[in-house]
Amino acid sequence: MQAAFKNKKVLITGGLGFIGSNLARRLVRMGARVTIVDSLIPEYGGSLFNIREIADRVNLNISDVRDPHGLAYLVKDQQYLFNLAGQTSHLDSMRTPFVDLEINSRAQLSILEACRQVNPEIKIVFASTRQVYGKPCYLPVDEKHPLQPVDVNGINKLSGEWYHLVYNDVYGIRSSVLRLTNTIGPCMRIKDARQTFLGIWIRLLLEDKSFEVWGGDQLRDFTYVDDCTAALLMAAHNEAAVGRVINLGGSETISLRALADLLVQQYGRGRYTVRAYPDERLKIDIGDYYSDFSLARSLLGWEPREPLTRALAKTLAYFQEHLEVYL
Amino acid sequence: MQAAFKNKKVLITGGLGFIGSNLARRLVRMGARVTIVDSLIPEYGGSLFNIREIADRVNLNISDVRDPHGLAYLVKDQQYLFNLAGQTSHLDSMRTPFVDLEINSRAQLSILEACRQVNPEIKIVFASTRQVYGKPCYLPVDEKHPLQPVDVNGINKLSGEWYHLVYNDVYGIRSSVLRLTNTIGPCMRIKDARQTFLGIWIRLLLEDKSFEVWGGDQLRDFTYVDDCTAALLMAAHNEAAVGRVINLGGSETISLRALADLLVQQYGRGRYTVRAYPDERLKIDIGDYYSDFSLARSLLGWEPREPLTRALAKTLAYFQEHLEVYL
Repeated sequence: MQAAFKNKKVLITGGLGFIGSNLARRLVRMGARVTIVDSLIPEYGGSLFNIREIADRVNLNISDVRDPHGLAYLVKDQQYLFNLAGQTSHLDSMRTPFVDLEINSRAQLSILEACRQVNPEIKIVFASTRQVYGKPCYLPVDEKHPLQPVDVNGINKLSGEWYHLVYNDVYGIRSSVLRLTNTIGPCMRIKDARQTFLGIWIRLLLEDKSFEVWGGDQLRDFTYVDDCTAALLMAAHNEAAVGRVINLGGSETISLRALADLLVQQYGRGRYTVRAYPDERLKIDIGDYYSDFSLARSLLGWEPREPLTRALAKTLAYFQEHLEVYL
Repeated sequence: MQAAFKNKKVLITGGLGFIGSNLARRLVRMGARVTIVDSLIPEYGGSLFNIREIADRVNLNISDVRDPHGLAYLVKDQQYLFNLAGQTSHLDSMRTPFVDLEINSRAQLSILEACRQVNPEIKIVFASTRQVYGKPCYLPVDEKHPLQPVDVNGINKLSGEWYHLVYNDVYGIRSSVLRLTNTIGPCMRIKDARQTFLGIWIRLLLEDKSFEVWGGDQLRDFTYVDDCTAALLMAAHNEAAVGRVINLGGSETISLRALADLLVQQYGRGRYTVRAYPDERLKIDIGDYYSDFSLARSLLGWEPREPLTRALAKTLAYFQEHLEVYL
């Protein structure tokens, strides 16, 4: 696959963010001609620091996916679009639902309209979320699981997915949808819990403060960011992924309490308290979740390679070195 | 139930439209204090003629559900909201997808936000569509059927549904969602096929012109409008419907070709041609569809009462009398 992206023109929306910047680094190493679109909204994950090693080898375009005119220019002549820009906070989606709608739903439609009009040959990979399943009816959750989002974010991400699928089926704009679970690794947002609760855990741990575990017994799975970017590339490269929805997942399942213990153990010190969910968060909680990613395995040959312990260790090492930048 | 709505304050969005005006008439007869919101967009179903018999007994407010400020005023103090305003054309949703998004998705969110802020006690019934199921995997289609919309309309209607369900679950804004199949009866739009293909069939038949049957073998079911409005009232009245999604359906299943024959037979004359689907329409066609409405039966005690033959006869009789008004 190394050769597949060499000299290819690739656009990454949200390319200064956590997953986007990791993907951009990888694509630059593969010789791709990468354009990054990011609006650097302070509450989201974008940061120039995330691309410091490749800044001179990418085309950086600071703009917002909600701007349909800019996007129509930017998607032109691109061969691949990794469509990663999104509002990720479940709580924010309830507090400011229209912002979530504009980014996760409406902007996706306008990106697709732009592709239809100026670049129908493009191949798109859209990053969606396990949130679309809502509270699991069974575990592990496969792609056939009922769709029953419990918050505005899940609803709008699902619209975003379906616009891709309908534009794929009706107009032949080749699109693949990956449903991501919790993704962790260098460059993630740790300032707060907007991307994942693990972000704020790591921040507080590194600041020698106690972090809070809400609930504690819920089961989760985690994908290390390098595994996630591998899946994005595999989906882009593989025609069998066109028009498909594919779960990512983790190789291990762990309770939040056990995860907190593991994190403290990897760091060598630290403390946390377990508390009940705040009411506002409880109402949109999904309980236990972990993915069945056998479709990714059979279709793409993908599986998570990084064990959770090593993923945590690498993530901690990165933020120990660069903590100040991410506060 | 007659007594349940007496003196109750009821808001109907899309109240000048086909189903909305039939519902308004019924509610006025029951002694409800009805406010109608409608924007009279020429391509949609609204018409002042539809409420001619009750015009002096309803509060008519010409406005658009996309106006969040107006809606916030209008939902205040209402006890029931029948949320029927919508863009219904599948083809239009592909040609002008943002209009469909604004009406079927964004406006629903702003209506719910208004209710949350100024009238959380309101009871809402939202009219959704079988289009959210897409191409059936099995027949008849029950509420557990996978959701896989094939066009932009289906995607946005599904968002509209889910906003209602999430606002119900998280904020206690009591909402019920009815998924309607083809609804027919007096006051439907017959100018074109934007509401249902049967509209344009009836128009052409009454104009002594040949109408077109696309495909012909597809199976469909139909709900007579009085059965539909009965279901809306039952859902509003029944606390068991809160937070639920409920299919409506028809008592009979019929192919489009057999329906064309039945229509011609009921009218006493007429002709039609059978042709292949136009390409644009074929891509978003759902094939055979008919509903399993056993949940409506068990939960609401609802079932369709009007046989299809009589529904067609009544509809034809209405439009024979008032054809000119609806052209």
